[in-house]
Amino acid sequence: MRRTISTPTLSDVAEVAGVSTATVSRCLNAPDRVQEATRRRVMAAVQQLGYSPNFGARVLAEGRTRTVGAIIPTMENAIFSRGIQAFQEELRDHGLTLLIASSSYRPEIEEEQIRALVGRGAEGLLLIGFQRSAGIRDFLRAQNVPALVAWAYEADAPQVCVGFDNQAAMAALAQEVIARGHRRLALISADPAVNDRAAARIRGLRAAMTAAGLDPETLALEPTDASLDAGGLAFRRLWEKTQRPTVVLCGTDVLAAGALTMAHEMGVDVPRAVSITGFADLDLARITRPPLTTMHLPHRRMGREAARMLVRMMAGDPVESLKLDCEMVLRGTLAGPP
Amino acid sequence: MRRTISTPTLSDVAEVAGVSTATVSRCLNAPDRVQEATRRRVMAAVQQLGYSPNFGARVLAEGRTRTVGAIIPTMENAIFSRGIQAFQEELRDHGLTLLIASSSYRPEIEEEQIRALVGRGAEGLLLIGFQRSAGIRDFLRAQNVPALVAWAYEADAPQVCVGFDNQAAMAALAQEVIARGHRRLALISADPAVNDRAAARIRGLRAAMTAAGLDPETLALEPTDASLDAGGLAFRRLWEKTQRPTVVLCGTDVLAAGALTMAHEMGVDVPRAVSITGFADLDLARITRPPLTTMHLPHRRMGREAARMLVRMMAGDPVESLKLDCEMVLRGTLAGPP
Repeated sequence: MRRTISTPTLSDVAEVAGVSTATVSRCLNAPDRVQEATRRRVMAAVQQLGYSPNFGARVLAEGRTRTVGAIIPTMENAIFSRGIQAFQEELRDHGLTLLIASSSYRPEIEEEQIRALVGRGAEGLLLIGFQRSAGIRDFLRAQNVPALVAWAYEADAPQVCVGFDNQAAMAALAQEVIARGHRRLALISADPAVNDRAAARIRGLRAAMTAAGLDPETLALEPTDASLDAGGLAFRRLWEKTQRPTVVLCGTDVLAAGALTMAHEMGVDVPRAVSITGFADLDLARITRPPLTTMHLPHRRMGREAARMLVRMMAGDPVESLKLDCEMVLRGTLAGPP
Repeated sequence: MRRTISTPTLSDVAEVAGVSTATVSRCLNAPDRVQEATRRRVMAAVQQLGYSPNFGARVLAEGRTRTVGAIIPTMENAIFSRGIQAFQEELRDHGLTLLIASSSYRPEIEEEQIRALVGRGAEGLLLIGFQRSAGIRDFLRAQNVPALVAWAYEADAPQVCVGFDNQAAMAALAQEVIARGHRRLALISADPAVNDRAAARIRGLRAAMTAAGLDPETLALEPTDASLDAGGLAFRRLWEKTQRPTVVLCGTDVLAAGALTMAHEMGVDVPRAVSITGFADLDLARITRPPLTTMHLPHRRMGREAARMLVRMMAGDPVESLKLDCEMVLRGTLAGPP
């Protein structure tokens, strides 16, 4: 007798084949791990019922894709990779698959990728920082796809966010630097025009200078690309100025490692001739000589918290923004002025 | 007069609105960058023609998603990030969007992600290394989705691949090490059971020992995780052996940087007390002190070539595997035995 079922389910297949639903699932997803006789019985039931194991049909049936998207500015900076890896691991514990895109720090590419991920069924998005057009925010609202901003925290942000107070963290680091007696400060930073985390760090540094009675206009600011080599070239430009800085703060550990490597190559002793500080406490902060004084950002914890928050947002639950604490790590690249 | 078109295209909308197709596209994708009057005219044409700008409809109309998937073992290792970034940039020049997943070096997660990416419309896949089940290879064949194996090259591989000859590259490095007089060799390596690139490097090292008249059984092999800390702990285990190695080769720069950092912490002078070598020539190979002797792998070039090959495979053109040359980079961590 042929049963008639409008939308046959996995359970229907299991019942007809006389096996568990887990076995049916295994037959469909890992047939080489199922005994041949079982596989044949299940496949016969699939055919008899007209069950469609294909993903699209499953999505239609369940109305869910169980897919989350994340868009990061670049694959090449470890400042994103550790947190994203933790984000993915936590999502997986909730049965969700993560698809990642990388925007090369270009807002128009990020917009394309947001549309592509939503078009491909992403039910929630992780985005870095707050900078994006009103048009794409409207698009996300219209599509009813929750988006969590990560790697940045602002108390009065209109969107839910999880991250660090970049401004306060850089201010704390600058305060320590100034307390060591430094008065001629330089900062190697990503371009604040396309990176709101960089902009917040610059504000924090200037605020600390003002609070300490220094003129924030005396800050030697070197905006540059995010790469190791760019950090090195920026350091050389600073060192060629007539008024050399006594400390070079850097917006990321990558820039700081680049600056330190260039200092070595130029024969400039760190920290005796100049101090250098990083920001993030990535692995590479520990492998330079001397190791970097930097601000530790809890990237793994942020990734895990971000996943939990986004899961709640996707379930329609109310979620509040979360600020994570940073911790100063004093290592060998910071000393008093020469 | 209402035109009747069975499947209205972007060009139809442009014609009716009296604007270029680029302007129509901008209205749909970045409306805030178009003048309001233009936007209204285009939107009226969209409504009149019944043109559907939504992604799903576009996919149905064109029969294409213009999406490529890549699955890498981890986000956290720079050995993948640089090549994937270049892969994405080249794909973008071909009008393709890349979605990335990370499998945590677990074959069963990679299988899930392959199915998810194909289910989400990926028209081609980039996969790392050759190790995966017959079931998932059958699945890809049945779905008619071309998959390119990257980061690995084997002359007799049944699948199209692009990468380095890991075996030959490690053999060349080992040859140099042995020529410097080293006889007690150790290797810190990823687990060859789940990483066929690591397995190939081990074979290359043993082959070089045999060719030089050394017993490959004397190689002190320390399999470990891929992290910096794991490299350090493996170095410490090697250093605690009664018969210490005079050189510690490492399967990646990350492991080598970890070993070098641990050596510093233990007060072991590199290269006077022991030599250390890396593999890949990532940025971090230049920031350690001394900088790492390593094997340069052209990751950016591989990413670009992989994109071009996959585009041809997706077009149904015949594609041959491509081997890229590696280059030894001699820096400060390699000297003769103490």
